[in-house]
Amino acid sequence: MSLARMGNELRCQCISTHSKFIHPRTIQDVTLTQSGPHCQNVEVIATLKDGTEVCLDPTASWVKIIIKAILDK
Amino acid sequence: MSLARMGNELRCQCISTHSKFIHPRTIQDVTLTQSGPHCQNVEVIATLKDGTEVCLDPTASWVKIIIKAILDK
Repeated sequence: MSLARMGNELRCQCISTHSKFIHPRTIQDVTLTQSGPHCQNVEVIATLKDGTEVCLDPTASWVKIIIKAILDK
Repeated sequence: MSLARMGNELRCQCISTHSKFIHPRTIQDVTLTQSGPHCQNVEVIATLKDGTEVCLDPTASWVKIIIKAILDK
């Protein structure tokens, strides 16, 4: 269990966000973290199938589309 | 880093899903995991602010609404 998933992480996880489209097929999972005392931003972190973690921009329309695609699968 | 987040977990994480509405205010983060060889279901796991992990039904409309609410915040 990672500290981040336990809600114990005390800072933002994302320094920058990936700007290019990532195909949902390459994504293993996506974690949405609410803003709060630890970080003023909503953070969206995708784990790709190769294990890479990528921060995505929660306000980007393609990010919303990917999340919808995963839910609707 | 949890094994689940590294994409190394070899089975479904959710045995059942929580059927009652959970207010987004009580949620710390939400992880959407794609279906794949490890599990035939899309899995949605919410971590609440008290550290509890709860499986949600990805097809439930209130779950989609909560996810949208987090993204639009």
